[in-house]
Amino acid sequence: MKIMIAGLGLIGGSMAKSLARAGYSADGFDRAPVLRRAEEEGVVARAAADTRDYDVVFVALPPDAAMEYIGGHPFREGAVIADICGVKGALEKFVYSQPRAFRYVGCHPMAGKEVSGLENSDASLFDGASMIIAENEHTDAEAVRLLESLFSEMGFGCIRHCSAEYHDAKIAYTSQLAHIVSNAYVKSPTADGFPGFTGGSFQDMTRIAGVDESVWTRLYMLNREAVTEELRRLVGHLNEYLAALERGNEGDLCGLLKEGRLRKEQLDVERKIL
Amino acid sequence: MKIMIAGLGLIGGSMAKSLARAGYSADGFDRAPVLRRAEEEGVVARAAADTRDYDVVFVALPPDAAMEYIGGHPFREGAVIADICGVKGALEKFVYSQPRAFRYVGCHPMAGKEVSGLENSDASLFDGASMIIAENEHTDAEAVRLLESLFSEMGFGCIRHCSAEYHDAKIAYTSQLAHIVSNAYVKSPTADGFPGFTGGSFQDMTRIAGVDESVWTRLYMLNREAVTEELRRLVGHLNEYLAALERGNEGDLCGLLKEGRLRKEQLDVERKIL
Repeated sequence: MKIMIAGLGLIGGSMAKSLARAGYSADGFDRAPVLRRAEEEGVVARAAADTRDYDVVFVALPPDAAMEYIGGHPFREGAVIADICGVKGALEKFVYSQPRAFRYVGCHPMAGKEVSGLENSDASLFDGASMIIAENEHTDAEAVRLLESLFSEMGFGCIRHCSAEYHDAKIAYTSQLAHIVSNAYVKSPTADGFPGFTGGSFQDMTRIAGVDESVWTRLYMLNREAVTEELRRLVGHLNEYLAALERGNEGDLCGLLKEGRLRKEQLDVERKIL
Repeated sequence: MKIMIAGLGLIGGSMAKSLARAGYSADGFDRAPVLRRAEEEGVVARAAADTRDYDVVFVALPPDAAMEYIGGHPFREGAVIADICGVKGALEKFVYSQPRAFRYVGCHPMAGKEVSGLENSDASLFDGASMIIAENEHTDAEAVRLLESLFSEMGFGCIRHCSAEYHDAKIAYTSQLAHIVSNAYVKSPTADGFPGFTGGSFQDMTRIAGVDESVWTRLYMLNREAVTEELRRLVGHLNEYLAALERGNEGDLCGLLKEGRLRKEQLDVERKIL
């Protein structure tokens, strides 16, 4: 099985390293300096010369670059082409609008870091993490099984299957909204180095604030409806606390906090059961 | 030096355990079942019978209970009475309105957990953490030095000194606002157990959602102005992202994200320098 990874950043690099750890050897594609470094460090065996040589191609590029790559290269008939973008509906829509003989599977690893690039990639990044596979009536079951096997060897602890729509709705909330909130949170003029005035709460709230704005703007635009709805909803909830505070209404504030606590407890129970 | 800890929950219990680790023996006060357990487990030496017996009393109770305790008990002349409440202005105002012969020092340990109670207390909770001491013209320097020495033995890594006003303004932002955001974040109907659809971002964003609403409502009311201002500001920022998303204005969205990233980078640099 010949494997190629297009894009050797944090995720692509980590895929290559975790495959190497499992005894696989993948070829790679990226900008020349990154590719050279990946070859020198043995992250990939060699630079991919012809995309038609490969049975499995992981496209570990940002959404627009991923679509351009998939649309712009010839692949072997039956080859498994898997992207790892954080939005799945837009990718499906693009891929299915193209003539193709390959088998496309949209994937999204639930693992990351607040830093990027090959230099931060890590063979153990996916250990125990979840991989989401977006499926629909076009999805080839055998291609999915092949990928599941490779993901398992990369260290992923579980595979989740769902539609692209379900994925995009969930991710808008669990990840995309969180990045906006974190990015907005640091904008208060009260924020300064203030060493000693922060515990874990502030660190957790602002860890992911430093998003790469060009990548994330596109992720937001490609899942705009779902993200907009979640953000509108969160602002609506925050305005309730704000109104209670402004009025000095202790009972209302207590009720709002209690509602959140109960919801959190319910989520924690659901996580344990599921 | 005779030490007493009033309130043997997460913080008070951890103070007693970390003092015991350093070779000190403290007496304790709490509701009967908690106190019995603390005695049985050797967290405290014995139940405090008379508050006048002690040179140092740590009042590790929620704000209202702390004020009631300090106002309602007789203390030895010159005794050092230190509360650990998350708001300092309200405590100072109360204490200084009372006739007193003791030396009051307002403190706030920058350590905690998202769980509470003696059963979650831990001798190492404060290891390397920061302790804030609120000072003003009434503060006794010798009392502060004595406490600093004890805090150091408890494992605290640094001591910060500031006014109650400065403390309350910073804490409204770094801690109190974060708890509101986390508490509001879990209220989306999109939230469910969805195992496999969350990475670290969601976990970090919602870790502190389950606040004890009776304690936190009071903390918010006792620092209402500063918290209201921070929340109003955050909602204002979030509304900018929302407007950009609603209009589909990619440039605006990118600009907002970039502004947050630059701010985050600046904060990270400041943290390293200071």
